[in-house]
This record gives sequence, structure tokens and C-alpha cells, in this order.
Amino acid sequence: MKLLRVGPVGAERPALLDEAGLLRDLSGLVTDIDGALLADDAALAAVRAAATAGDLPVRDTAGLRIGPPVARIGKVVCIGLNYHDHARETGAATPEEPILFMKAPDTVVGPDDTVLIPRGSVKTDWEVELAVVIGRTARYLADDEQALAVVAGYAVAHDVSERAFQIERGGQWDKGKNCETFNPLGPWLVTADEVPDPQALGIRLWVNGELKQDGTTAEQIFPVAEVVRYVSQFMTLYPGDVINTGTPAGVAMGQPEPKPYLRAGDVVELEIDGLGRQRQALRLA
Amino acid sequence: MKLLRVGPVGAERPALLDEAGLLRDLSGLVTDIDGALLADDAALAAVRAAATAGDLPVRDTAGLRIGPPVARIGKVVCIGLNYHDHARETGAATPEEPILFMKAPDTVVGPDDTVLIPRGSVKTDWEVELAVVIGRTARYLADDEQALAVVAGYAVAHDVSERAFQIERGGQWDKGKNCETFNPLGPWLVTADEVPDPQALGIRLWVNGELKQDGTTAEQIFPVAEVVRYVSQFMTLYPGDVINTGTPAGVAMGQPEPKPYLRAGDVVELEIDGLGRQRQALRLA
Repeated sequence: MKLLRVGPVGAERPALLDEAGLLRDLSGLVTDIDGALLADDAALAAVRAAATAGDLPVRDTAGLRIGPPVARIGKVVCIGLNYHDHARETGAATPEEPILFMKAPDTVVGPDDTVLIPRGSVKTDWEVELAVVIGRTARYLADDEQALAVVAGYAVAHDVSERAFQIERGGQWDKGKNCETFNPLGPWLVTADEVPDPQALGIRLWVNGELKQDGTTAEQIFPVAEVVRYVSQFMTLYPGDVINTGTPAGVAMGQPEPKPYLRAGDVVELEIDGLGRQRQALRLA
Repeated sequence: MKLLRVGPVGAERPALLDEAGLLRDLSGLVTDIDGALLADDAALAAVRAAATAGDLPVRDTAGLRIGPPVARIGKVVCIGLNYHDHARETGAATPEEPILFMKAPDTVVGPDDTVLIPRGSVKTDWEVELAVVIGRTARYLADDEQALAVVAGYAVAHDVSERAFQIERGGQWDKGKNCETFNPLGPWLVTADEVPDPQALGIRLWVNGELKQDGTTAEQIFPVAEVVRYVSQFMTLYPGDVINTGTPAGVAMGQPEPKPYLRAGDVVELEIDGLGRQRQALRLA
């Protein structure tokens, strides 16, 4: 299923994109798309049954904003340098184990919302990423099978990054990862049953129509199952948590000087096979 | 005012500790103590008036668990190496600007809840910290006055840290900062009007009755106002967000070998002048 949330910021309503591409209203069936729903097999089965029966109300999509596909995200865990080609372009060694950092849930916005370039920024960069959405509480997962069993689904994420804040301002990466609007998510949460192999997805990003990132999740150093298993050794994962699994080659930081960092007026588009497409205009905060 | 939340995990009720030390029930007046309440001057004034009038119901404290004093925390921003004496003991240079890292809100537990030593941990360490609780949305604050105006109050925080995960496992500190139960908070949120000088507070921590940290917030490299102003340049602060402002000297990592890292069965007690006292027993996860 493709689950999404549509409507004004803070007042999104749950919906489903059906097989025919029609937007179906779920607000008569569930209160929202959040960790509680993702952990509730009976409620998800009811949504699936209603979708199959085809009797959910159709909504007009004209002018409709799409919000992030998950409400009340508990935390966003990010994996750094997780693509062989991206590690090479940044000049970093291949990590021996996953690098973890955090984004606050309040950085998450809809897939087509405006992205703000922070005041004082000269190095705002793009990063298209495969996001994993968690559907079960998970501690100390033992293997890939246990890890994939706690994955509710997948979505496109944009891990917007300010490189000067991240790297040149004294320490930890989080400083350049948590600016307002820095994590567009969506358009949909695609349930895991519809993504049989998360390591075989094309993943692309354009700036002003020019293809900048054109990779595949096959290049991930630590695949999704290993990332989820690994993270669960260091923190407890809860339904509605999100893991951004890293970006392929092609970010601005990896280009020759002068590096083409984002400016107000730029438009970034992102997509992952089967997970839909995002489009953000940039403006100054 | 001293605001707190009492009751079982996930079912805490709002309360107030009055001038006479009596626990007063606030659940007839407010639904919870959270960012929405902290941003609501009228609701806070009503609480204050009821407290002054002395007509709030008294609750028996026997056997009552104290939860974290703020519900639905949006993010926990942490400042690294923010005490002159702690920077010296770790052998680190004095930071030129604040070091930021993040803890997930789900690490926050009550002040006397059990703290779990993660599986595989051999370097679980303590850090008593002054926590700042935000009461207003804040972006790009210009000066100390604006910064202090968005502070709702203060609390004791325990920034529990696994040093091997933090430092020896490939990269960012967050890996050793986000284990389950790693952020006891409370017992109370003391409103900012009752903390006239946040830079003049004694701050102490004991392990098994032995005083390990005995500092003062006067040693902070970046004082509270500067920390809040600085953080607001990199991320938007919202009501109910928490900033842990760093720890003074005396952590296990700063001791001679063999460093006395925490073990199951240890008891840690923490206090800050005027902000109350915590007590946690440690056990294996």
C-alpha cells in the first residue's frame, strides 16, 4: 500500500494512493498514519481490505498539499557515508561500521514543501536517501530476518545538509543536519510487502532539472537489514521512528570547486524507484 | 513554581510542589505539563493563582513515581565540553563555539527510574547537567535577553553516556548518547522566575554515596543565554524542547585507570541547587 497524509501543515488527513492512482480518503477508517497504526496489524488489515474492496471515498487532488507520510515521528536516525560511491567522492575511508547521527523529528516536512536555506549558510547541500520507517519496537535484533520484520515500509527522504555547519563549526555533524525544513519525507510510505528488495532501487536527484545523483541502493555499504539490526544495538527503535540510510554519490560537496551549493530559487527533485517523487523550491530563512 | 508529573510510566498526571513542600494535583486545571502549557501564559497564570490560593488538592506522595517533568519533548539538544574543568579533565581543547549533539526524546525517563547499562557496554559514564526547558518558538535569537525570554525553566538532567560507543565506534557521539533510559530528567521543572542566576548553581553527582562531580554552573564556558542564542542559529527551538547544557569535571572518563565506569547495582545520585535531586539504580539491559 501507498499511505500518505494530505492537507495543510498540522492538519493532514490520512489517505491511500490506490492501484489506479486514485487518492482515497482513510479518515473514516483511521485517525492518522503514525507509529500506533503501523504497529497495529488489525487496523492495517482493515485499511488493506477497504482498499481492495475499492469502496473508500475518492478525493480530488487538485491543489492538495502532501504532508510527511508519518505523524508523530519519534526520532530520525541517519547513517553517514553508507554508499561506496559517496564515500569515495568525499575522500572518506569506507566506514568499518555504520556512522550514526540524528535529526530532530521537527525537521521533517512534506515532500514538496519549501526548504529553507539557513541564515549565514553558504554550503547547503542535497542528499537523496532511502528512508526506513519502523513498525515494531526493536531492541538488540539478532539478525537480518528480525531486522526486516520491524520495518513497516519505505519512503524517499531528503537529508538536507549544511556542510560548513556540519564540518567546520567545531565538532559533531548534527549542527548542520537539524535546520528547519531539513528533512522532506514522502510522498508516500510504501509498505514493506511492496518493496521485495530494498537493495535494488534506483535513487536519483536533480537540481534545476540537471541530474546530480543517479545511484542505486545496491551501492549501500551496510544494507537496510544490517542498518536496522545495528542501530537496535545502540538505541531502542519504536513504531514511527525513521532511519535515513545514507546518500549515493553526486552531492555538491563532492564536486570540483566552485562547488554548486544550493541557493534561493533553486529547485530540487528527488525520486526512488517505486517510492515516488519530491520537488522542493529553496528560499532563504 | 515547581511543576512535575507523577504516576506510572505513560500515565503521569500533572502536579505542583508548593512552598510548603506539599504535592498538589493539577489535573483539574491542566491536561499535562508540556510545550503547549509552557507556551500558554494564561494557563500558567491560572496554575500560579491556584497555587497561591492554596486550594489545589493535596496528593499523598507515598510510593508515588515521579516521571519526567515535561511530556512530549520535541528534541533534546546537548552541549559538549561546556565546563572549563571538564574540558581540562578530558584533555580536550576549550571549544571555540558550542559543540552540539542530539539525544532522542525517547531516552528521557523519570529522575528515579532505573538506568539500563546497554548490552556490550564497558564504559557507561555519568554526567550531571543543567537542563533548560524551552517555552517559546525561537529562531535566530539576537542576544542574551531574547534568549532568556524563551526559557520556560530549568531541571536536573543526567546525560548518561557510553564512552566506547560515543568515541571508539566510528564517528559521531550520538551513538553513545541514545541508549534506552539515558536521559533521566527532573524531579521538577522549576520556572525561570525562580532561578534568577542560572550561572550560580552548585551541581553535584554521587556514585554509591561517593561525591564524584562537585561543580558550579559558573564554570560553564558558554552560559545558558549564549547556548540558547547559539542553538537558535542552527535549529528552531519549540516549546517543550530541552537543552542539556554540559557537565562539570568528575566523570569516569576523566579518572585515572582503571576508570570507574558504572556497573549493574551501582546507584547514582544527582542534584543542582534549587532544582532537586535524582537517584537511579543501574541494571543490565
